[in-house]
Amino acid sequence: MSSKIDVAVLGATGSVGQRYIELLDGHPQFRLRELFGSDRSAGKRYADAADWRISASPPEEAANTVIKHHEQPVESPIVFCSLPGGLAREVETRLAAEGHYVFSNARDNRLDPDIPLLIPEVNPEHAAAVRVQQQARGWSGFVVTNPNCSTIHFVLALKPIFDAFGVEQLMVTTMQASSGAGYPGVPSLDLIDNVVPYIGGEEEKMEIESRKLLGGFDGQEFQYADMRVSAQCNRVPVRHGHMEAINVQLRQPASPSEVVDVLRAFKGRPQELGLYSAPANPVIVRDQPDRPQPALDRDVAGGMASIVGRVRECPLFGIKFIVLGHNTIRGAAGASILNAELLLADGYINA
Amino acid sequence: MSSKIDVAVLGATGSVGQRYIELLDGHPQFRLRELFGSDRSAGKRYADAADWRISASPPEEAANTVIKHHEQPVESPIVFCSLPGGLAREVETRLAAEGHYVFSNARDNRLDPDIPLLIPEVNPEHAAAVRVQQQARGWSGFVVTNPNCSTIHFVLALKPIFDAFGVEQLMVTTMQASSGAGYPGVPSLDLIDNVVPYIGGEEEKMEIESRKLLGGFDGQEFQYADMRVSAQCNRVPVRHGHMEAINVQLRQPASPSEVVDVLRAFKGRPQELGLYSAPANPVIVRDQPDRPQPALDRDVAGGMASIVGRVRECPLFGIKFIVLGHNTIRGAAGASILNAELLLADGYINA
Amino acid sequence: MSSKIDVAVLGATGSVGQRYIELLDGHPQFRLRELFGSDRSAGKRYADAADWRISASPPEEAANTVIKHHEQPVESPIVFCSLPGGLAREVETRLAAEGHYVFSNARDNRLDPDIPLLIPEVNPEHAAAVRVQQQARGWSGFVVTNPNCSTIHFVLALKPIFDAFGVEQLMVTTMQASSGAGYPGVPSLDLIDNVVPYIGGEEEKMEIESRKLLGGFDGQEFQYADMRVSAQCNRVPVRHGHMEAINVQLRQPASPSEVVDVLRAFKGRPQELGLYSAPANPVIVRDQPDRPQPALDRDVAGGMASIVGRVRECPLFGIKFIVLGHNTIRGAAGASILNAELLLADGYINA
Amino acid sequence: MSSKIDVAVLGATGSVGQRYIELLDGHPQFRLRELFGSDRSAGKRYADAADWRISASPPEEAANTVIKHHEQPVESPIVFCSLPGGLAREVETRLAAEGHYVFSNARDNRLDPDIPLLIPEVNPEHAAAVRVQQQARGWSGFVVTNPNCSTIHFVLALKPIFDAFGVEQLMVTTMQASSGAGYPGVPSLDLIDNVVPYIGGEEEKMEIESRKLLGGFDGQEFQYADMRVSAQCNRVPVRHGHMEAINVQLRQPASPSEVVDVLRAFKGRPQELGLYSAPANPVIVRDQPDRPQPALDRDVAGGMASIVGRVRECPLFGIKFIVLGHNTIRGAAGASILNAELLLADGYINA
Repeated sequence: MSSKIDVAVLGATGSVGQRYIELLDGHPQFRLRELFGSDRSAGKRYADAADWRISASPPEEAANTVIKHHEQPVESPIVFCSLPGGLAREVETRLAAEGHYVFSNARDNRLDPDIPLLIPEVNPEHAAAVRVQQQARGWSGFVVTNPNCSTIHFVLALKPIFDAFGVEQLMVTTMQASSGAGYPGVPSLDLIDNVVPYIGGEEEKMEIESRKLLGGFDGQEFQYADMRVSAQCNRVPVRHGHMEAINVQLRQPASPSEVVDVLRAFKGRPQELGLYSAPANPVIVRDQPDRPQPALDRDVAGGMASIVGRVRECPLFGIKFIVLGHNTIRGAAGASILNAELLLADGYINA
Repeated sequence: MSSKIDVAVLGATGSVGQRYIELLDGHPQFRLRELFGSDRSAGKRYADAADWRISASPPEEAANTVIKHHEQPVESPIVFCSLPGGLAREVETRLAAEGHYVFSNARDNRLDPDIPLLIPEVNPEHAAAVRVQQQARGWSGFVVTNPNCSTIHFVLALKPIFDAFGVEQLMVTTMQASSGAGYPGVPSLDLIDNVVPYIGGEEEKMEIESRKLLGGFDGQEFQYADMRVSAQCNRVPVRHGHMEAINVQLRQPASPSEVVDVLRAFKGRPQELGLYSAPANPVIVRDQPDRPQPALDRDVAGGMASIVGRVRECPLFGIKFIVLGHNTIRGAAGASILNAELLLADGYINA
Repeated sequence: MSSKIDVAVLGATGSVGQRYIELLDGHPQFRLRELFGSDRSAGKRYADAADWRISASPPEEAANTVIKHHEQPVESPIVFCSLPGGLAREVETRLAAEGHYVFSNARDNRLDPDIPLLIPEVNPEHAAAVRVQQQARGWSGFVVTNPNCSTIHFVLALKPIFDAFGVEQLMVTTMQASSGAGYPGVPSLDLIDNVVPYIGGEEEKMEIESRKLLGGFDGQEFQYADMRVSAQCNRVPVRHGHMEAINVQLRQPASPSEVVDVLRAFKGRPQELGLYSAPANPVIVRDQPDRPQPALDRDVAGGMASIVGRVRECPLFGIKFIVLGHNTIRGAAGASILNAELLLADGYINA
Repeated sequence: MSSKIDVAVLGATGSVGQRYIELLDGHPQFRLRELFGSDRSAGKRYADAADWRISASPPEEAANTVIKHHEQPVESPIVFCSLPGGLAREVETRLAAEGHYVFSNARDNRLDPDIPLLIPEVNPEHAAAVRVQQQARGWSGFVVTNPNCSTIHFVLALKPIFDAFGVEQLMVTTMQASSGAGYPGVPSLDLIDNVVPYIGGEEEKMEIESRKLLGGFDGQEFQYADMRVSAQCNRVPVRHGHMEAINVQLRQPASPSEVVDVLRAFKGRPQELGLYSAPANPVIVRDQPDRPQPALDRDVAGGMASIVGRVRECPLFGIKFIVLGHNTIRGAAGASILNAELLLADGYINA
């Protein structure tokens, strides 16, 4: 027990904050020590302040933790941050300057030229940018970000295809779950017998973040992948699990079965390292013609894998398929925790 | 009253059959005289046989009509047919041979080389193929078909774009309503908190039917449009109204506002002729960033228009947008009735 | 046109405000002249300020009306009020004092000893209490209230039963629609694959309001009906239409078919007077074993009737049945407008 | 491993059959050896025949088991049966006559005078009726049934109240999940934006089964409890988890907090015996005013407990509350398995 590293969660009462707490419960390397919240919740027991919406009740220990105010000092070396966009940048950079290792789910710092936007199976070598960051900014800590909840799943599924065949261009149309907007989030009148064809800023994030993730890092700078992406984002009446319909044009044409083969064979650095939160296979392929489906497949592999189905020929781009992923697990808190596991395993964290 | 033409509905108890009955109620040119059904319903009052699901109860007169068996002779000159695919071909061709004017929502005859697949605003000149049909087959009647419920809305919205700028290629990802599968149709366990990424045969229909609709007719044969289409079809928890996310590459590039202009200016032959079921504008464009939405927009213009929104630039294809349409009104029964109005107005029906 | 009476709507942008505007469009006696809103919307065109959620778009004329601020003077003689509870009392009494005829959907004044809580088919004689009100408070105008959206439908259906057989006690368990909570209202995460067994204050309202409605008025005071009521209220994933399961113990026992007979025969004063918004039959009884259902029956009679089904024996109380009603039409704005029609017809309004 | 008892599942591909298979996976006393199905599925691998709907995929071993035909001989001593009502009686009695220990979820035999209708926490002493059964019918095996999915949860929650205070009469209005009707079950058009106020036969089952369960057994015959029950059953858009609103009149009045105390203190024979599938507490009480909710609470205690909330005063009956339970776990397959564990522990099974 004594060898676990203390961690703090910022934005602990929100949807993603709740997932951090759920996933950190029983974690072998991290000990959840501090929870931070806003004026509304600071000073209260977590169980009283949080409107826990992901299961019956929060883990016992977290439930009894008194929430600190976001302006109070953070004592834990590792900080998981799910502050709202706009608020996160200042807090995260301040904490990194103070020596904290910040793993952020917020959008604010994702595209900074010295801050890694990281998926451990996709671009683990980008982690080294924290050294550039520390040197340039004089920080002893660092900030590492994970992508948007709809970006992460199609990029994770795309990675082995990208490496094997190259990707020229890609269309993606999403059908995203309610929990992606947090709680209270989307009003029920918008999602009973309805679809909302708009999620502010989401399409832009998917189009640019995917290119940073699949691009290179030369030890100093990130090179964005030379790949064109167009996204259309929709909200559908589903609790959890983003579905994404993909059309992809490969540089070197491949058949659907060749694509399935590389998806199934795919293992990344987390699988090599045997990281605690890593799924055995980051991409799982369904053979049934009508899968994946959110209600049936989102919790597979603890919500940490991307589930692919209907890999078939596209008359325009060569290949089309469906990908599903859990938006608040691998799409947010789980992504961030896996990042922390990677940076710990690869020696970037002194603790 | 005496000047109305008698019409029969085949497959009268199904979802589309119900819409025929609703839309024919009070029609100024057609009088609903006969309803036909299967063993299960023949001989019963319509109100007793049909599990009416589109409103509180069927129109009074239809409610009291006794359903005839599909094998009984049809007396009405005009026949609206919503028989299941597979069954329709034989029945429809037999009725046309007997001199009936058959307007079919079934898939069986849509791609026949002498049978029009017709949207009055899109390809009214294809109607003339009924003369080829009558001559070649020795029929005094004819068969005219309307497209699949997901094809019709994107093609209706595409028509003015196709005419103004030309279309090279098009991607479409659908989010389709439950009623598209009829009743009982999709089980509720598949559509509570879920999306099903598969609708058998639907993608193929959208890819080929759209090319026949936007193609030419030289007086003898149909020419399929030289346009490539790729479709991905999904079922979402919505009662009525198919949403479709479109990416389109024009032959002659145009800005989103130029596209909006041609959509808004669009009028077709039904508008010219002032046909009873024709919407004032076949395409309506929403300015709000989060529209159209099924729950709010599907009933606009009596469900006979296609509602477009979010016309914007696509980094790959130039233009992307959303289209919504009512799948059992303009997507099925309403399409078929408008076809009958066109053929009547253009002199193909002697009655 | 000149003979119409000007009306104002307070709280015009909310769910109920939107229904007022929809229902007043084309009203033969009332002309919608003024719309009032809060800081957020005052000064804007209605179409820009209101997040219109009940159909595609607001009526043309209302759309272009500029919203006044709640503190600006009201010029119209008749005021329809859907301000939030807590805020309404002060505003409504001030307006009545100034001479306005206030018809309120808010809860604040419903139980006042000189303010009618009115359903025109149920207790039209309570309207006379406005004279007591005017005298006691020195007002030239008055305040008339309508009941809570879940109270109104079971009381409307209960009225003929109450008159014919007497009611000793009644249990009611509701399954209420999302729109009852307004917009944004209930978060979608609470109503996808879920039921919320709690609506703050609702049970208490149903238990007490029903007794005022079915009680007497002796010219000076209201007598609450000697009837015991117990309510349990639940929110279910439905857009519009409250369902209520009722068990009722009659003073003079009656069979289900006797109950159906009195329900079907029921006509009230609005039907006698032929009021514009009055349904032909305030209670409609379904014979099918699985009806009424919100999706099929809520819009019957323009949403102004209560739809009853499954009238059958209750082993404990004698009779049980289901009632459904549209919660924002007859359950709110429509109720209020019908009240205004009654008070106008019965000579309480000088205009 | 060798000490486990072989079990067979009849009706293995249905909703309840699937739950049997899920719950038997890894069971310490029972080994799932045989799966039986109809013409449609017999001879196929389970994974190919079953449309598995309760998670991503069936357990590995079951997935590869070839389904036998219902008319083939059963070899396992214990048989779990989820055949449709009507079909079950003949099969179950034949198997019991052949010496099998049949645990049935079907309705057919529940009210037989020598067949136990059993909830281990409620009426474990009824198990002894299998001796009467064996003697009277000359069977070496037996049939034990569990109640209907909506009966079981309110009776489980009622048991400690019944014992502590006595129950005079009880009203229950249900809001039941889609999975209670199996798959395909309820059409999605009936449960998108809708409630169906009717479930055939359900109310009658709740009213009579509850009285057998809470009644006595004198060694020869069952005595039905002297308690009056009235049920109203509704289907709501929820995947799993039946909600039930209860009003109960006690013989000896008690306050809500006294009721909560007996609910929380409740332990039954399965808890005493430490049966494998027994929840630590058969009834769990929520303090929050808006709980339990199906999406949040149905999986608590592995779906084997009844979750109670909102225990409060009822102006008519004294006490009212909400109970939620998982309808295919404790409401069906889990109930049946717990019954088998009880009969095994209490020495009724020789194996």
